[in-house]
Amino acid sequence: GRRHHHKTPLPGARGRALVPAARPQLRIHSAPAPARGEGPRNRPGTDQMGGGSGGRGKGMPRAMAPVEEVDVAAVRYKPAELQAPHLTGFPLRAFVWLLESPLLGPLVTSILKKQNNMTQMLQHTVIPERPMFYPEYPPQEPERGVVTLGDDRDPVDRVEEALSCLAPYDPSGRFTSADEKNPFLYWKIRDFAYAYRSGITTPSAVAELVIAGVEEWNNKKPPMPMLIFFKADDLRKQADASTKRFEKGSPISVLDGIFFAVKDDIDCLPYPSKSATTFFDEIRPVEKDAVAVSRLRKCGVIFIGKANMHELGLGVTGNNPNYGTVRNPHSVDRYTGGSSSGPAALVSSGLCSGAIGTDGGGSVRIPSSLCGIVGLKTTFGRTDMTGVVCDAGTVEVASPLTSSVEDSVLLYSALAGSRPMDKLTLRPSLLCVPNLVSSENSKILQSVKVGKYTEWFHDVSDIEISNTCEDALSLLRNTFGCQIEEIILPELLEMRTAHLVTIGSEGFCQLNAHYQEGRRTEMTLDTRGSLALIGSFTSADYVASQRLRRRMMYYHMEAFRKVDVIATPTTGITAPRIPPSAL
Amino acid sequence: GRRHHHKTPLPGARGRALVPAARPQLRIHSAPAPARGEGPRNRPGTDQMGGGSGGRGKGMPRAMAPVEEVDVAAVRYKPAELQAPHLTGFPLRAFVWLLESPLLGPLVTSILKKQNNMTQMLQHTVIPERPMFYPEYPPQEPERGVVTLGDDRDPVDRVEEALSCLAPYDPSGRFTSADEKNPFLYWKIRDFAYAYRSGITTPSAVAELVIAGVEEWNNKKPPMPMLIFFKADDLRKQADASTKRFEKGSPISVLDGIFFAVKDDIDCLPYPSKSATTFFDEIRPVEKDAVAVSRLRKCGVIFIGKANMHELGLGVTGNNPNYGTVRNPHSVDRYTGGSSSGPAALVSSGLCSGAIGTDGGGSVRIPSSLCGIVGLKTTFGRTDMTGVVCDAGTVEVASPLTSSVEDSVLLYSALAGSRPMDKLTLRPSLLCVPNLVSSENSKILQSVKVGKYTEWFHDVSDIEISNTCEDALSLLRNTFGCQIEEIILPELLEMRTAHLVTIGSEGFCQLNAHYQEGRRTEMTLDTRGSLALIGSFTSADYVASQRLRRRMMYYHMEAFRKVDVIATPTTGITAPRIPPSAL
Repeated sequence: GRRHHHKTPLPGARGRALVPAARPQLRIHSAPAPARGEGPRNRPGTDQMGGGSGGRGKGMPRAMAPVEEVDVAAVRYKPAELQAPHLTGFPLRAFVWLLESPLLGPLVTSILKKQNNMTQMLQHTVIPERPMFYPEYPPQEPERGVVTLGDDRDPVDRVEEALSCLAPYDPSGRFTSADEKNPFLYWKIRDFAYAYRSGITTPSAVAELVIAGVEEWNNKKPPMPMLIFFKADDLRKQADASTKRFEKGSPISVLDGIFFAVKDDIDCLPYPSKSATTFFDEIRPVEKDAVAVSRLRKCGVIFIGKANMHELGLGVTGNNPNYGTVRNPHSVDRYTGGSSSGPAALVSSGLCSGAIGTDGGGSVRIPSSLCGIVGLKTTFGRTDMTGVVCDAGTVEVASPLTSSVEDSVLLYSALAGSRPMDKLTLRPSLLCVPNLVSSENSKILQSVKVGKYTEWFHDVSDIEISNTCEDALSLLRNTFGCQIEEIILPELLEMRTAHLVTIGSEGFCQLNAHYQEGRRTEMTLDTRGSLALIGSFTSADYVASQRLRRRMMYYHMEAFRKVDVIATPTTGITAPRIPPSAL
Repeated sequence: GRRHHHKTPLPGARGRALVPAARPQLRIHSAPAPARGEGPRNRPGTDQMGGGSGGRGKGMPRAMAPVEEVDVAAVRYKPAELQAPHLTGFPLRAFVWLLESPLLGPLVTSILKKQNNMTQMLQHTVIPERPMFYPEYPPQEPERGVVTLGDDRDPVDRVEEALSCLAPYDPSGRFTSADEKNPFLYWKIRDFAYAYRSGITTPSAVAELVIAGVEEWNNKKPPMPMLIFFKADDLRKQADASTKRFEKGSPISVLDGIFFAVKDDIDCLPYPSKSATTFFDEIRPVEKDAVAVSRLRKCGVIFIGKANMHELGLGVTGNNPNYGTVRNPHSVDRYTGGSSSGPAALVSSGLCSGAIGTDGGGSVRIPSSLCGIVGLKTTFGRTDMTGVVCDAGTVEVASPLTSSVEDSVLLYSALAGSRPMDKLTLRPSLLCVPNLVSSENSKILQSVKVGKYTEWFHDVSDIEISNTCEDALSLLRNTFGCQIEEIILPELLEMRTAHLVTIGSEGFCQLNAHYQEGRRTEMTLDTRGSLALIGSFTSADYVASQRLRRRMMYYHMEAFRKVDVIATPTTGITAPRIPPSAL
């Protein structure tokens, strides 16, 4: 299972044999997927790409064929193999000291990178494409069957329009007590909205349940630190204001009185933003809500507090020595996945309807999958990152975690909207919401082509995962009439490396001055190991990664000529067990 | 004079005391200038930027104020001070060996960088802006008094339209023999065009003069290797075809039969493109003309061969041990400047009407200035880099060197035109040519505001330079009625560092696989020193440089709210003497 890390193959709790757990999930996406592998191509007349280090003699580096000339049909799938020592306690401390040492550090990182075929490939391969620094794509045709929500409109208007696209709401059976078959019933946003409007409950009453729930989880043994900043009084104040609006018969929107959490790297008053470090509030005080947060507030949303995460987002387990490690609500001896560990656990445990997370390399998708909820990584640039800690790159977005697709539509319709400077750079398409009310709807699904890269789809640690996902595809085909089409995405191993270098460098750049000026030792050993590795990437590695980005964008655009969406398992593993030594 | 290096402060012939020579020139530009210096700002409530390494204690790195909040009027100018050893022969060889050594290299480059306050600043400063990876600017208002040449039109049409914008041609006095006051008379493109059409001479007759001239310069002692690939037969063939067109009375355009040179990093059949290395043709064969070359060919241009340059463009002197160092035609014991040394010398010596060079950091502007000709660095993305060796960055353009502004207009109007992928990224403005025939013209010049940053303007090694440039400004003001306005451009020192990291990393990335696989030792020691330094830049340095780019673009856009153009001396020094040991 070790080959399924989606971020850095680094020391710490992650280098363990991982065992499958519950709830594998299907992922439908129109964005590049987390890394798996792809092998060398065999094209006559072209130098080969590949994993090994077999020399070709002086003056003959490996060269990729120009991307337009790659014979995609001939590409053979190759799974990734990552190696990293599993270390805890003193050996981990010693290893990080070694990585950070000015003289020996470069040697150790270079061995680690070579073992994992990382930047070695970037430095020894001729990549003919020019760099592409942002995920650019040509203007797209409008899709059929969708409603376009202009992102300069008021969030309240957009949510109401998105609401009108949903199938009619039917409260019957939504408020009966849970039966044996469904031991836990997630209330959807429209269930809360109905309950508030029909007098079943009030936001203030729900607030008391949330406060009690948070305390209950915090007091468990082992504790479940889903929220790391939480003020019951602030929550009550927001809830009371919302309750008053319902009493007056004038709620703001369907989101009024709905409880959401915010990942700790997103500004939300009255809380600090520490990104689950111990010190980040000292170097970056919070002055106002992030734009994403303020859009939801305009709709009447209630924020319950700041959710735990992998420190600085630099890991995918959610292991966090500073505030404690969030446990998977479905199985408390397992990880939630990360970096949005807290948001996923809060939504999964039913303590709130949704959360705003951030995702640049799986940070929303991975924990959503491992916690059995819905995570959306939007197209880059579709959300406004102002007021988000990691606001400095070309991959990261703020995006929703919810317990259902329907809630994701509602949350995203309020959240979305590019900032002006991104519009200049990216001209992102307008936000579109499928119109589920339209009578054409069923016909449209029949014309939807789902792309499947079978070998990649089946490259999982347990057949239970691919079987479950195959069941989902069968449902799409047999019940809704979607067509399943085979596709191939070349160079997935290279994509993983390019992605790691890109997200790592962009994040490290933002931290660098503080890292250099003494904050390094205030970070967890896990983070320090990651940063020591990232700090060894050269500027040419970064530019080479952007050359690979142009190839990746090309391959995906080509795939999307054939299919409308690409389906893969979200993760190749189920939720890994938390090794006691990793705490 | 050492502080005026515009590229890398590296070992080699460049670390010399430089003495002034002839022909300082004024530069009018609307693009960021080569690097000079700017000092710390004093803003209350903001941490200071600055040169030194004075620590501020743990957790308190230097922080730049957000760019919109910088009080530009309070910025104090600070000249740059660069230090690099002057080495030749064995010490140079030993120094490069040291720089390239895996264990000691990082130590030496880090001392060099610290001495020159380079990436140290990038790593220890909080730069609040998001990175800007391309030179982006919002759409601009059309300028008054210009004709717009759509870049999707045929080059022949565009040249003819540009021609119609020039003041009427008057042949009188153009063909009299040189007098004592003007010992050398540059024929302009329109002089050749007139001479061909009126039977004064033919392209074939001129070709023989060019061939004789090239041989004469090559046989001089010391030799003057302006062209490094030259085939007299190919030149005669092109000239004969042109002569036949004139005989038939059907020349293609005003550029038919005009002689141009091409810098060796631009593809032009039947020649290889070696970028003045010994080996580049082995790793990058030329299959067709660069787009820039083919556009000129369509207009009937004759290409005389591939011009010498600083190896791989990685230097600004033109020193080249592989093919010999081009000497300044105005003073053969002095450098031409570089990297487009050959193109500048060819045009300056009158052997051809113009040349296509490449410029990412002064490579056209510097040698044009030092050789007394006109060099244009166009806006990034306005020319098509397909078929140019350095086609992989965010700063480099292919652009014209000519002996007059008028010829620059004609050459550029044929050359210009973005490639489709750049239009997606950059949406560059259309090519505009001033309409010099329009009766409004004189009035328009009266409304032109010329920006002058006086302290920067006067930061030159010899007062002769600034005096000459002041004379040019006086001419603009007194004769043409332009207004001169004082401006300030903050953070020029930071801009220099960001530029060096950007152009270096983008160029190195392109070479990296060959460098790693054994070609390193085939490069000159000068190039190897530069690449060892560039190879030490981290990926976070690159991203930090793009953060600075957003600031630089902001400061320049702000300046261009006040003024229409910014005038500076092109170089802070005149042509430096070639030290015999550097050969």
